[in-house]
Amino acid sequence: MNAEYFKNSIRKIYDFPEKGIVFLDLTTAFKDPICMKYISDSLYELYKDKGITKVIGIESRGFIAGGDLAYRIGAGFVPVRKTGKLPGETVRITYSKEYGEDTIEMHEDAINENDIVLIHDDLLATGGTLKAAYNLVKTFGIKKVFVNFLVELDFLEGRKIFEKDLEIESLVHF
Amino acid sequence: MNAEYFKNSIRKIYDFPEKGIVFLDLTTAFKDPICMKYISDSLYELYKDKGITKVIGIESRGFIAGGDLAYRIGAGFVPVRKTGKLPGETVRITYSKEYGEDTIEMHEDAINENDIVLIHDDLLATGGTLKAAYNLVKTFGIKKVFVNFLVELDFLEGRKIFEKDLEIESLVHF
Repeated sequence: MNAEYFKNSIRKIYDFPEKGIVFLDLTTAFKDPICMKYISDSLYELYKDKGITKVIGIESRGFIAGGDLAYRIGAGFVPVRKTGKLPGETVRITYSKEYGEDTIEMHEDAINENDIVLIHDDLLATGGTLKAAYNLVKTFGIKKVFVNFLVELDFLEGRKIFEKDLEIESLVHF
Repeated sequence: MNAEYFKNSIRKIYDFPEKGIVFLDLTTAFKDPICMKYISDSLYELYKDKGITKVIGIESRGFIAGGDLAYRIGAGFVPVRKTGKLPGETVRITYSKEYGEDTIEMHEDAINENDIVLIHDDLLATGGTLKAAYNLVKTFGIKKVFVNFLVELDFLEGRKIFEKDLEIESLVHF
Protein backbone atom coordinates (compact mmCIF):
# COMPACT_ATOMS: atom_id res chain seq x y z
CA MET A 1 0.00 0.00 0.00
CA ASN A 2 1.49 3.30 -1.04
CA ALA A 3 0.93 6.65 -2.62
CA GLU A 4 0.52 5.15 -6.10
CA TYR A 5 -2.43 3.03 -5.01
CA PHE A 6 -4.09 6.11 -3.50
CA LYS A 7 -3.35 8.18 -6.58
CA ASN A 8 -4.82 5.50 -8.84
CA SER A 9 -7.97 5.42 -6.69
CA ILE A 10 -8.76 9.05 -7.50
CA ARG A 11 -11.28 9.37 -10.31
CA LYS A 12 -11.01 11.94 -13.07
CA ILE A 13 -14.31 13.61 -13.98
CA TYR A 14 -14.22 15.61 -17.19
CA ASP A 15 -16.03 18.95 -17.55
CA PHE A 16 -16.91 19.35 -13.85
CA PRO A 17 -17.85 21.78 -12.41
CA GLU A 18 -17.66 23.39 -15.85
CA LYS A 19 -16.56 22.64 -19.41
CA GLY A 20 -12.82 22.12 -19.81
CA ILE A 21 -12.09 21.33 -16.15
CA VAL A 22 -10.85 17.88 -15.14
CA PHE A 23 -12.10 17.37 -11.59
CA LEU A 24 -10.17 14.99 -9.35
CA ASP A 25 -12.83 13.08 -7.43
CA LEU A 26 -11.50 11.73 -4.14
CA THR A 27 -14.75 9.97 -3.21
CA THR A 28 -13.54 6.87 -5.05
CA ALA A 29 -10.54 6.83 -2.70
CA PHE A 30 -12.49 7.67 0.47
CA LYS A 31 -14.84 4.73 -0.10
CA ASP A 32 -11.87 2.34 -0.13
CA PRO A 33 -10.73 1.28 3.37
CA ILE A 34 -7.19 0.80 2.07
CA CYS A 35 -7.02 4.47 1.06
CA MET A 36 -8.59 5.61 4.33
CA LYS A 37 -5.85 3.77 6.20
CA TYR A 38 -3.16 5.13 3.90
CA ILE A 39 -4.38 8.70 4.38
CA SER A 40 -4.77 8.40 8.13
CA ASP A 41 -1.42 6.70 8.72
CA SER A 42 0.44 9.03 6.35
CA LEU A 43 -0.90 12.19 7.96
CA TYR A 44 -0.23 10.81 11.41
CA GLU A 45 3.40 10.06 10.53
CA LEU A 46 3.86 13.54 9.02
CA TYR A 47 2.41 15.48 11.95
CA LYS A 48 2.61 13.37 15.12
CA ASP A 49 5.69 15.16 16.49
CA LYS A 50 4.96 18.77 15.51
CA GLY A 51 3.19 19.87 18.68
CA ILE A 52 0.05 20.74 16.70
CA THR A 53 -2.82 21.73 18.99
CA LYS A 54 -5.52 22.49 16.41
CA VAL A 55 -6.31 20.93 13.05
CA ILE A 56 -8.30 23.33 10.91
CA GLY A 57 -10.41 21.64 8.24
CA ILE A 58 -11.75 23.53 5.25
CA GLU A 59 -15.45 22.93 4.54
CA SER A 60 -16.38 20.38 3.63
CA ARG A 61 -13.99 17.79 2.17
CA GLY A 62 -11.29 18.96 4.57
CA PHE A 63 -13.42 17.61 7.42
CA ILE A 64 -13.11 13.97 6.32
CA ALA A 65 -9.42 13.37 7.03
CA GLY A 66 -9.03 16.47 9.22
CA GLY A 67 -11.20 15.17 12.04
CA ASP A 68 -9.38 11.86 12.06
CA LEU A 69 -5.98 13.53 12.06
CA ALA A 70 -6.97 15.74 15.00
CA TYR A 71 -7.97 12.68 17.00
CA ARG A 72 -4.82 10.76 16.11
CA ILE A 73 -2.34 13.49 17.05
CA GLY A 74 -4.26 14.58 20.15
CA ALA A 75 -5.34 17.95 18.76
CA GLY A 76 -8.69 19.70 18.62
CA PHE A 77 -10.61 20.10 15.34
CA VAL A 78 -11.78 23.48 14.08
CA PRO A 79 -13.93 24.01 10.96
CA VAL A 80 -13.49 26.86 8.51
CA ARG A 81 -16.89 27.37 6.90
CA LYS A 82 -18.68 29.42 4.31
CA THR A 83 -20.31 32.46 5.85
CA GLY A 84 -23.55 32.06 7.81
CA LYS A 85 -23.09 28.44 8.88
CA LEU A 86 -21.24 28.86 12.18
CA PRO A 87 -23.65 29.77 14.99
CA GLY A 88 -21.33 31.72 17.29
CA GLU A 89 -19.39 34.96 16.94
CA THR A 90 -16.97 34.69 14.05
CA VAL A 91 -13.92 36.21 12.40
CA ARG A 92 -14.30 36.33 8.63
CA ILE A 93 -12.36 37.09 5.50
CA THR A 94 -13.58 37.92 2.01
CA TYR A 95 -11.45 37.03 -1.00
CA SER A 96 -11.64 37.22 -4.76
CA LYS A 97 -12.45 34.19 -6.86
CA GLU A 98 -12.43 33.75 -10.61
CA TYR A 99 -16.01 35.02 -10.70
CA GLY A 100 -16.89 37.35 -7.82
CA GLU A 101 -16.09 37.03 -4.14
CA ASP A 102 -16.42 34.51 -1.36
CA THR A 103 -16.36 34.78 2.42
CA ILE A 104 -15.17 32.18 4.92
CA GLU A 105 -15.17 32.32 8.68
CA MET A 106 -14.08 30.72 11.94
CA HIS A 107 -15.46 31.07 15.44
CA GLU A 108 -13.61 33.86 17.21
CA ASP A 109 -12.85 31.54 20.16
CA ALA A 110 -11.76 28.61 17.97
CA ILE A 111 -8.02 29.19 18.27
CA ASN A 112 -5.69 31.54 20.11
CA GLU A 113 -2.14 32.81 19.74
CA ASN A 114 -0.70 29.91 21.73
CA ASP A 115 -2.01 27.30 19.30
CA ILE A 116 0.16 25.50 16.77
CA VAL A 117 -2.10 25.07 13.80
CA LEU A 118 -2.39 22.72 10.85
CA ILE A 119 -4.66 23.82 8.00
CA HIS A 120 -5.94 20.82 6.05
CA ASP A 121 -7.89 20.44 2.85
CA ASP A 122 -8.31 17.65 0.36
CA LEU A 123 -6.80 19.36 -2.67
CA LEU A 124 -4.56 22.28 -3.56
CA ALA A 125 -5.45 23.78 -6.93
CA THR A 126 -4.93 27.52 -7.43
CA GLY A 127 -5.04 27.94 -3.66
CA GLY A 128 -7.44 30.87 -3.37
CA THR A 129 -9.56 29.46 -0.55
CA LEU A 130 -6.55 28.13 1.27
CA LYS A 131 -4.73 31.42 1.08
CA ALA A 132 -7.80 33.07 2.60
CA ALA A 133 -7.91 30.46 5.36
CA TYR A 134 -4.22 31.02 6.02
CA ASN A 135 -4.73 34.79 6.29
CA LEU A 136 -7.73 34.19 8.55
CA VAL A 137 -5.65 32.02 10.87
CA LYS A 138 -2.88 34.63 10.96
CA THR A 139 -5.31 37.25 12.31
CA PHE A 140 -5.41 35.23 15.55
CA GLY A 141 -1.71 35.89 16.09
CA ILE A 142 -0.74 32.28 15.48
CA LYS A 143 3.04 31.88 15.30
CA LYS A 144 3.35 28.44 13.70
CA VAL A 145 1.14 27.18 10.86
CA PHE A 146 1.46 23.97 8.88
CA VAL A 147 -0.51 23.39 5.68
CA ASN A 148 -1.50 19.99 4.34
CA PHE A 149 -3.32 18.57 1.35
CA LEU A 150 -4.09 15.06 0.26
CA VAL A 151 -3.58 16.01 -3.38
CA GLU A 152 -1.66 18.85 -5.01
CA LEU A 153 -2.04 19.91 -8.64
CA ASP A 154 1.56 20.94 -9.27
CA PHE A 155 0.87 22.49 -12.67
CA LEU A 156 -1.39 25.13 -11.08
CA GLU A 157 1.47 26.21 -8.81
CA GLY A 158 -0.89 26.95 -5.91
CA ARG A 159 1.86 26.71 -3.33
CA LYS A 160 3.56 29.78 -4.82
CA ILE A 161 0.96 32.08 -3.25
CA PHE A 162 2.01 31.05 0.26
CA GLU A 163 4.96 32.43 2.19
CA LYS A 164 8.22 30.77 1.28
CA ASP A 165 8.95 29.49 4.78
CA LEU A 166 5.57 27.78 5.17
CA GLU A 167 5.69 23.99 5.49
CA ILE A 168 3.28 22.63 2.88
CA GLU A 169 2.97 18.87 2.49
CA SER A 170 0.79 16.95 0.04
CA LEU A 171 0.46 13.17 0.00
CA VAL A 172 0.36 12.89 -3.79
CA HIS A 173 0.96 15.21 -6.73
CA PHE A 174 -0.51 15.50 -10.22
CA MET B 1 -13.54 11.40 30.70
CA ASN B 2 -17.09 10.50 29.92
CA ALA B 3 -20.32 11.47 28.28
CA GLU B 4 -21.01 14.25 30.80
CA TYR B 5 -17.76 16.04 29.94
CA PHE B 6 -18.63 15.89 26.24
CA LYS B 7 -22.17 17.05 26.91
CA ASN B 8 -20.92 19.99 28.96
CA SER B 9 -18.55 20.97 26.14
CA ILE B 10 -21.44 21.59 23.75
CA ARG B 11 -22.37 25.25 23.58
CA LYS B 12 -25.96 26.50 23.46
CA ILE B 13 -26.55 29.32 20.99
CA TYR B 14 -29.88 31.07 21.37
CA ASP B 15 -31.95 32.20 18.36
CA PHE B 16 -29.85 30.40 15.72
CA PRO B 17 -30.50 29.84 12.88
CA GLU B 18 -33.72 31.70 13.69
CA LYS B 19 -35.57 33.29 16.62
CA GLY B 20 -36.72 30.83 19.26
CA ILE B 21 -34.32 28.02 18.31
CA VAL B 22 -31.61 26.89 20.75
CA PHE B 23 -28.80 25.60 18.57
CA LEU B 24 -26.43 23.03 20.05
CA ASP B 25 -22.99 24.02 18.81
CA LEU B 26 -20.60 21.08 18.75
CA THR B 27 -17.62 23.13 17.59
CA THR B 28 -16.75 23.86 21.23
CA ALA B 29 -16.46 20.10 21.74
CA PHE B 30 -14.62 19.38 18.48
CA LYS B 31 -11.92 21.91 19.34
CA ASP B 32 -11.20 20.04 22.58
CA PRO B 33 -8.82 17.05 22.13
CA ILE B 34 -10.44 15.32 25.10
CA CYS B 35 -13.81 15.35 23.34
CA MET B 36 -12.27 14.24 20.04
CA LYS B 37 -10.81 11.22 21.81
CA TYR B 38 -14.07 10.51 23.63
CA ILE B 39 -16.05 10.64 20.37
CA SER B 40 -13.56 8.53 18.42
CA ASP B 41 -13.14 5.87 21.11
CA SER B 42 -16.87 5.70 21.87
CA LEU B 43 -17.87 5.24 18.24
CA TYR B 44 -15.12 2.67 17.73
CA GLU B 45 -16.35 0.64 20.71
CA LEU B 46 -19.94 0.78 19.50
CA TYR B 47 -19.24 -0.28 15.92
CA LYS B 48 -15.95 -2.21 15.78
CA ASP B 49 -17.60 -5.65 15.66
CA LYS B 50 -20.59 -4.98 13.41
CA GLY B 51 -19.01 -5.85 10.06
CA ILE B 52 -19.67 -2.34 8.75
CA THR B 53 -18.11 -1.81 5.31
CA LYS B 54 -19.18 1.80 4.62
CA VAL B 55 -19.62 4.77 6.92
CA ILE B 56 -21.92 7.32 5.34
CA GLY B 57 -21.43 10.86 6.62
CA ILE B 58 -24.06 13.55 6.16
CA GLU B 59 -22.70 16.85 4.83
CA SER B 60 -20.98 18.49 6.43
CA ARG B 61 -20.70 18.02 10.20
CA GLY B 62 -21.18 14.27 9.72
CA PHE B 63 -17.82 14.18 7.94
CA ILE B 64 -15.82 15.17 11.05
CA ALA B 65 -16.28 12.04 13.16
CA GLY B 66 -17.50 9.91 10.25
CA GLY B 67 -14.17 9.88 8.43
CA ASP B 68 -12.32 8.94 11.58
CA LEU B 69 -14.77 6.17 12.41
CA ALA B 70 -14.42 4.70 8.91
CA TYR B 71 -10.65 4.57 9.32
CA ARG B 72 -10.82 3.06 12.79
CA ILE B 73 -13.22 0.22 11.94
CA GLY B 74 -11.59 -0.50 8.56
CA ALA B 75 -14.53 0.75 6.48
CA GLY B 76 -14.74 3.10 3.52
CA PHE B 77 -16.20 6.60 3.88
CA VAL B 78 -19.04 7.84 1.67
CA PRO B 79 -20.43 11.39 1.71
CA VAL B 80 -24.09 12.28 1.33
CA ARG B 81 -24.17 15.79 -0.09
CA LYS B 82 -26.53 18.54 -1.10
CA THR B 83 -27.37 18.34 -4.78
CA GLY B 84 -24.81 19.55 -7.33
CA LYS B 85 -21.66 19.00 -5.27
CA LEU B 86 -20.79 15.43 -6.20
CA PRO B 87 -19.04 15.27 -9.57
CA GLY B 88 -20.01 11.77 -10.72
CA GLU B 89 -23.32 10.11 -11.55
CA THR B 90 -25.60 10.22 -8.53
CA VAL B 91 -28.72 8.80 -6.97
CA ARG B 92 -30.81 11.51 -5.32
CA ILE B 93 -33.82 12.00 -3.14
CA THR B 94 -35.97 15.08 -2.57
CA TYR B 95 -37.74 15.56 0.73
CA SER B 96 -39.94 18.13 2.43
CA LYS B 97 -38.57 20.49 5.01
CA GLU B 98 -40.35 22.98 7.23
CA TYR B 99 -40.07 25.55 4.44
CA GLY B 100 -39.92 24.02 0.96
CA GLU B 101 -37.87 21.06 -0.26
CA ASP B 102 -34.30 19.86 -0.24
CA THR B 103 -32.41 17.30 -2.31
CA ILE B 104 -29.50 15.14 -1.21
CA GLU B 105 -27.48 12.68 -3.25
CA MET B 106 -24.84 9.96 -3.26
CA HIS B 107 -22.64 8.67 -6.05
CA GLU B 108 -24.37 5.75 -7.73
CA ASP B 109 -21.25 3.60 -7.29
CA ALA B 110 -20.69 4.61 -3.65
CA ILE B 111 -22.26 1.52 -2.09
CA ASN B 112 -23.81 -1.73 -3.24
CA GLU B 113 -26.21 -4.31 -1.89
CA ASN B 114 -23.45 -6.28 -0.20
CA ASP B 115 -22.40 -3.38 2.00
CA ILE B 116 -23.23 -3.12 5.67
CA VAL B 117 -23.78 0.57 6.19
CA LEU B 118 -23.59 3.01 9.08
CA ILE B 119 -25.21 6.42 8.55
CA HIS B 120 -23.61 9.04 10.78
CA ASP B 121 -24.44 12.65 11.56
CA ASP B 122 -23.62 14.95 14.41
CA LEU B 123 -27.13 15.56 15.70
CA LEU B 124 -30.60 14.06 15.52
CA ALA B 125 -33.31 16.72 15.77
CA THR B 126 -36.56 16.14 13.88
CA GLY B 127 -34.73 13.71 11.61
CA GLY B 128 -35.89 14.92 8.20
CA THR B 129 -32.51 14.87 6.49
CA LEU B 130 -31.54 11.60 8.11
CA LYS B 131 -34.75 9.94 7.10
CA ALA B 132 -34.06 11.01 3.52
CA ALA B 133 -30.51 9.65 3.76
CA TYR B 134 -31.86 6.39 5.12
CA ASN B 135 -34.35 6.09 2.26
CA LEU B 136 -31.57 6.93 -0.21
CA VAL B 137 -29.38 4.16 1.19
CA LYS B 138 -32.25 1.69 1.00
CA THR B 139 -32.59 2.28 -2.75
CA PHE B 140 -29.22 0.51 -3.16
CA GLY B 141 -30.72 -2.70 -1.78
CA ILE B 142 -28.71 -2.53 1.43
CA LYS B 143 -29.82 -5.18 3.90
CA LYS B 144 -28.27 -3.91 7.12
CA VAL B 145 -28.17 -0.25 8.17
CA PHE B 146 -26.98 1.24 11.44
CA VAL B 147 -27.66 4.88 12.35
CA ASN B 148 -25.51 6.94 14.68
CA PHE B 149 -25.50 10.45 16.12
CA LEU B 150 -23.22 12.21 18.52
CA VAL B 151 -26.15 14.07 20.04
CA GLU B 152 -29.86 13.31 20.13
CA LEU B 153 -32.57 15.80 21.07
CA ASP B 154 -34.95 13.39 22.75
CA PHE B 155 -37.78 15.90 23.10
CA LEU B 156 -38.07 16.20 19.29
CA GLU B 157 -38.61 12.44 19.03
CA GLY B 158 -36.70 12.21 15.75
CA ARG B 159 -36.04 8.50 16.12
CA LYS B 160 -39.77 7.78 15.85
CA ILE B 161 -39.70 8.38 12.09
CA PHE B 162 -37.31 5.46 11.56
CA GLU B 163 -38.30 1.83 11.34
CA LYS B 164 -38.71 0.19 14.71
CA ASP B 165 -36.04 -2.44 14.16
CA LEU B 166 -33.37 0.06 13.18
CA GLU B 167 -30.39 0.27 15.54
CA ILE B 168 -29.99 3.97 16.40
CA GLU B 169 -27.30 4.97 18.89
CA SER B 170 -26.47 8.45 20.16
CA LEU B 171 -23.56 9.25 22.44
CA VAL B 172 -25.44 11.82 24.49
CA HIS B 173 -29.04 12.98 24.84
CA PHE B 174 -30.71 16.29 25.63
